[in-house]
Amino acid sequence: MLVVSEETCRKVVTRENAFTAIEGVFAAMAAGEACNFPVIREAIGNADALYGFKSGFDRKNGVLGLKSGGYWPGNEKRGLTNHQSTVFLFDPDTGRPHAMVGGNYLTAIRTAAASAVSIRHLARKDAKVLGMLGAGFQSAFQMRAAAEQRDFERVIGWNLHPEMLPRLAETAAELGLPFEPVSLDRLGAEADVIITITSSFEPILMRGQVKPGTHLACMGTDTKGKQEVDAELVAAATLFTDEVAQSASIGECQHAVAQGLIDKADITPVGAVVNGKHPGRTHDDEITLFDGTGVGLQDLAVAALAAEAARSAGLAAEIDL
Amino acid sequence: MLVVSEETCRKVVTRENAFTAIEGVFAAMAAGEACNFPVIREAIGNADALYGFKSGFDRKNGVLGLKSGGYWPGNEKRGLTNHQSTVFLFDPDTGRPHAMVGGNYLTAIRTAAASAVSIRHLARKDAKVLGMLGAGFQSAFQMRAAAEQRDFERVIGWNLHPEMLPRLAETAAELGLPFEPVSLDRLGAEADVIITITSSFEPILMRGQVKPGTHLACMGTDTKGKQEVDAELVAAATLFTDEVAQSASIGECQHAVAQGLIDKADITPVGAVVNGKHPGRTHDDEITLFDGTGVGLQDLAVAALAAEAARSAGLAAEIDL
Repeated sequence: MLVVSEETCRKVVTRENAFTAIEGVFAAMAAGEACNFPVIREAIGNADALYGFKSGFDRKNGVLGLKSGGYWPGNEKRGLTNHQSTVFLFDPDTGRPHAMVGGNYLTAIRTAAASAVSIRHLARKDAKVLGMLGAGFQSAFQMRAAAEQRDFERVIGWNLHPEMLPRLAETAAELGLPFEPVSLDRLGAEADVIITITSSFEPILMRGQVKPGTHLACMGTDTKGKQEVDAELVAAATLFTDEVAQSASIGECQHAVAQGLIDKADITPVGAVVNGKHPGRTHDDEITLFDGTGVGLQDLAVAALAAEAARSAGLAAEIDL
Repeated sequence: MLVVSEETCRKVVTRENAFTAIEGVFAAMAAGEACNFPVIREAIGNADALYGFKSGFDRKNGVLGLKSGGYWPGNEKRGLTNHQSTVFLFDPDTGRPHAMVGGNYLTAIRTAAASAVSIRHLARKDAKVLGMLGAGFQSAFQMRAAAEQRDFERVIGWNLHPEMLPRLAETAAELGLPFEPVSLDRLGAEADVIITITSSFEPILMRGQVKPGTHLACMGTDTKGKQEVDAELVAAATLFTDEVAQSASIGECQHAVAQGLIDKADITPVGAVVNGKHPGRTHDDEITLFDGTGVGLQDLAVAALAAEAARSAGLAAEIDL
């Protein structure tokens, strides 16, 4: 089987090929050709860790496997990242292990690719101002992927802890874009595309703050109880997601569903837009919202890409089990 | 991380150290120090395969991970085993991958160790006749492990397909024990310990066939609908299992539970007997029955043993992710 290190993933998986892989797997999911299995997530009662796995099978692309890992809050003190992920792929015809792929970089790049897919297919073509809500580790990946989707002229941003805003400023500078820290009111009033990437358990951005025509990519909510935007804002938007069942239960849409403001049928898999089965945005004043909950098939798609690219570049180790 | 091949597992994991590991993890489970996570099992819609994983955390022994794999019925034609398993262990303090261990041999040895644990703790001390019901791949592992637990004088056996009985004869010969193929009536009337290891979906051995004092280890039922012995026989026995929830839902006890003949509270984790919290067999005429459903923690226990033994013997490859 192939072993693909974190370092090799960073070399062979680019924003471009990750985008194509994620767009493709969203399309396969919407067409019923790929399916995620139930998620396992357990507080293990050791080191305050949350451990689990996401898994699935993409029949169209012949990709079977799982991402295993979780969140270890004490890791930073040890010089390790708190999120630890490894992807394991299996040959769908025989069940034999095909590849083991470091999953930390891939998790960041696939999450950024998901919001980028939503921006490509749902944001107004004339979007000029990119708004970032959140300035953690993931925000840089998000900004870089988003910046390639429209001709943005500037970036504005807000973060609960202002001392983290320099990350956004530095990333924008790297992209050749001016950056300005703003209030939430200005963020909602000026941004044409807003990416929320926080670990908030309270709504931060409210319905009244967001102007018509905005596209929101809500990328931080992946657990019961988390919330980044007002349920009223969700209810006012045209809703898209990676996987409807997750969106309604653990994603940003969970609160609007629980309050009866929307129901599952109001949420469209973004893959249906990719496939041309749903028109996506239909007018310039529409607010579109992509609820990126994160599914195992995304991890498998970029890991399969990493394994194949590493193999053909001679960068994958081969081991025998 | 460590990589431990199938071949190395065969070298470093013996019946003896597997027995100790399985006995230990059953004890930890019964003491609430180790827990299995929900099982994922999916018909993937490719190659008629059943794919999934079993996982858990043994806090007492610091073992966290999963066994991934499944059943690929077309593998034999390709010269591969139909059951394909790989175990992945993680450091419970950081979430980083600790070891990848070939799981095919380990699955056979841990399943045999489970019934051997039940025989050690539940069979009559004076048991002389070992009865084997089933003659497939696993039966040889079962017989070898069982033979070490009592001073058996002979082995008798039955199989739906009599042409497979030579496997039992050969294994018994290897152990220096005489073997005789018998009817089900004779099997029940003469055996002091009976191991059932089939993939039956119908009861094979009936209540009236089994004599008082017998210990049964029912090892084949791990799925809804499977069944090896009569529900009346289950109801007449003192019941033990690896994990009560699985026993009542997908194990041999499922039918007696569904028919209202017993309820969950009648089933005792065999680890409670190991721990001295339950007396086990209380008289010579008691029929005891161990329902071995197979849990992820068993796989993790023997894989952790394999990883440690392989590392100290210099037989584990080390790779960097």
